[in-house]
Amino acid sequence: MTVNLTYSNQYVSYTREELIKKVAIQMSDKRFQHVLRVEEKALELAHLYKVDLEKASIAALTHDYAKERSDDEMIDWIKSHDFDLELIEYGNAIWHGIVGASVVRKELGITDEEILKAIEYHTTGASQMSQLAKVIYVADYVEEGRTFPVVNEARQIAKKDLDEAVAFETKHTLLFLIQKNARIYPKTIETYNTWVVNK
Amino acid sequence: MTVNLTYSNQYVSYTREELIKKVAIQMSDKRFQHVLRVEEKALELAHLYKVDLEKASIAALTHDYAKERSDDEMIDWIKSHDFDLELIEYGNAIWHGIVGASVVRKELGITDEEILKAIEYHTTGASQMSQLAKVIYVADYVEEGRTFPVVNEARQIAKKDLDEAVAFETKHTLLFLIQKNARIYPKTIETYNTWVVNK
Repeated sequence: MTVNLTYSNQYVSYTREELIKKVAIQMSDKRFQHVLRVEEKALELAHLYKVDLEKASIAALTHDYAKERSDDEMIDWIKSHDFDLELIEYGNAIWHGIVGASVVRKELGITDEEILKAIEYHTTGASQMSQLAKVIYVADYVEEGRTFPVVNEARQIAKKDLDEAVAFETKHTLLFLIQKNARIYPKTIETYNTWVVNK
Repeated sequence: MTVNLTYSNQYVSYTREELIKKVAIQMSDKRFQHVLRVEEKALELAHLYKVDLEKASIAALTHDYAKERSDDEMIDWIKSHDFDLELIEYGNAIWHGIVGASVVRKELGITDEEILKAIEYHTTGASQMSQLAKVIYVADYVEEGRTFPVVNEARQIAKKDLDEAVAFETKHTLLFLIQKNARIYPKTIETYNTWVVNK
């Protein structure tokens, strides 16, 4: 897909092409291709659910910006930026969203709170999510490179009902984590209790 | 099984037979039979893992003491006894352990903290559990009346390794709750992160 999107200068002081370059140098080509696919899916969902396309593009392109930082750098960041120190227990899978939003704010100069929250919540979800945050959360789960067993079902739901897609993703991510005995970030349960229970 | 156990007067001021009568009048016969089976299993596990048999008997007999109280009474109790008001969201499945321990303390005059914690944690578990608390948690799950799919596997594990039985129960309870979209009490995730992760 060729994305034809001209940024307004409202959220970042550079063009989409310049942002893409800033993102590309932060990560492996494999991850960068994933980021481009998340942007593609996020724009598709943003169009469908009437979410600002420029914000969707920026949040998608930056959602994994800090994912390849070293554990040491992330732990330093947590200690020096007023995060709950318990976060240190959780590892990069959790840090790269929550800490990543803070890195994006500082290094890319992005200050729009809705974009930063979408980055922050893209792995764990949250009990309160904007439509933009839901789009990024779901786009990351169903982008066309994903191949896990329920991804086609998730893609179908994503086209029909964004909230239901959030619920489906949250439920199946939890089941996946528990089946492999992986640590669960407590906020993920707030997401589950809000979006999955009684849906 | 006939239980032949003479209480020492150290934890309750009455005999086991008197305690059984006090418990029986609080609940349906069906639940009372479950309570007796939990005591039987708890004594078996207590013997195996060298836990005080009298404490195991008292905690098992009283673990569901408050389970048939009305929602209104439980909510009044939560409001008048300095509990976190968020607890009100969770319903009797959670209340009857956490609030139940407080009811048992007041109405049965039991003050031994280890027994009360075993009652408190019998549904959700906890990151810190005494051997007694583990015995009650597991006995409630594998008592001989239980028939859910993995109960035989749980029974086998309970005979071999109490900590592993706590982990198995926590993992499978969570999977069961999530599969049916049921609300999860956040402390259950602390139990999971402590006992299941990296086991």
